[in-house]
Amino acid sequence: MTSESKSVTAAIIVIGNEILSGRTEDKNIGFLATRLTEIGVQLREVRVVSDDETAIVDAVNACRAVYDYVFTTGGIGPTHDDITSDCVAKAFGVKNTLHPEAFKILDDHYAEGEFNEARLRMAHTPEGATLVDNPISLAPGYQIENVFVLAGVPSIMQAMFESLRHRLVGGPPVLSHTISVNKPEGKIAQALAAIQNQFADVEIGSYPYFRGGVVGCSLVMRSTDTGQLNDASAAVRQMILDAGGEPVEEHGV
Amino acid sequence: MTSESKSVTAAIIVIGNEILSGRTEDKNIGFLATRLTEIGVQLREVRVVSDDETAIVDAVNACRAVYDYVFTTGGIGPTHDDITSDCVAKAFGVKNTLHPEAFKILDDHYAEGEFNEARLRMAHTPEGATLVDNPISLAPGYQIENVFVLAGVPSIMQAMFESLRHRLVGGPPVLSHTISVNKPEGKIAQALAAIQNQFADVEIGSYPYFRGGVVGCSLVMRSTDTGQLNDASAAVRQMILDAGGEPVEEHGV
Repeated sequence: MTSESKSVTAAIIVIGNEILSGRTEDKNIGFLATRLTEIGVQLREVRVVSDDETAIVDAVNACRAVYDYVFTTGGIGPTHDDITSDCVAKAFGVKNTLHPEAFKILDDHYAEGEFNEARLRMAHTPEGATLVDNPISLAPGYQIENVFVLAGVPSIMQAMFESLRHRLVGGPPVLSHTISVNKPEGKIAQALAAIQNQFADVEIGSYPYFRGGVVGCSLVMRSTDTGQLNDASAAVRQMILDAGGEPVEEHGV
Repeated sequence: MTSESKSVTAAIIVIGNEILSGRTEDKNIGFLATRLTEIGVQLREVRVVSDDETAIVDAVNACRAVYDYVFTTGGIGPTHDDITSDCVAKAFGVKNTLHPEAFKILDDHYAEGEFNEARLRMAHTPEGATLVDNPISLAPGYQIENVFVLAGVPSIMQAMFESLRHRLVGGPPVLSHTISVNKPEGKIAQALAAIQNQFADVEIGSYPYFRGGVVGCSLVMRSTDTGQLNDASAAVRQMILDAGGEPVEEHGV
């Protein structure tokens, strides 16, 4: 509930049948969610789509029209199932062409005869793309307008993100404060709703937990406004004390 | 690339700001992806959306029109940020009303005076819903048409899935066979693409790995047709041997 006019938003598109089949557990959503939050970019949506042209093109076009930044992960390797660049090019209505800088990076790397037709695919980007450095395995990611196309392997994706991070302009960072209490949500829900109604600029979330037979909940206050955040947190703290609970505090982003 | 006429498809909608902020790592996508694959339901898409009415309603309506089954996780507790049932009701154009069976389950459970207004929210479902049993914490999930509304807490979501699993009618199970080789993808990509072109009913995926300085890839063949799966796997095995590699095999779903 931060001011929409100031917030900077993002979406992630995870591309890969291996996530949808359950073979591979995604590690990229959590990393990007945390890093984007840290730099004041609000992740608003994630889509996981299959290695299917229509699914990828539609997701890219839907997200790039709505969010400030879009990050795709996966599908930029040398094999036949790596179709992300063809799809992103199609989404933008441009050709997927040889990128001279990407070509040079890979041509310098591979020994004579090793830079084959399959690997040449990794030197192609949609026309107009700017490369994103890959310090791990060289084959670059890239940016086209507000869309960043990154690898699927977590270590490479993370390195690429750090390479492009300086290009992102965040909004005011969303600060958070968490207060936990060993009481079930249902006992404090009505009082909590009343506090939420008082603080329109603070988003209050309640997340139940079950730890060793103890039922409790973590109440998370998030806002770009420090004063409002502190006031809402004070109100939640007092509400817990009034209910006979013991508030446990945790600051964080 | 299994026959579209026979396949049974699904989408997951993960509802929750806590996933998008990075505070909570999602555990539900991986569980549902694996279980659905096991019973012959092909997960085609996942969306993670925020606790926002428009975002939830749009995702539910987009997915229920396209896929055989839709599973939502999160947002069915007693607090003000639990808006899933209101949103699903809106998506279906029905009221979110008191469900007599859900009311009885909770009324029997809570002591005198404990079944308050907030908890009463958990006894509401969209009109026409059928309950999904929650053996962990009682407050039920539900099914409305092809949409299953489940809890966000992983242990509860998993128990609810097992409660509803008998209602799902899967298609032919997708069988898989994995062959790994300690060679970079780029070395076998062209030969692999040729094999993919020979086997239209087998989906071949290539997933690179980097283990202790060794670069390799896992080649995953997936099909509902055992004969085609075996033939494609044999072709991949031979291709690896021809390239001087050592194929390492792994069966699985």
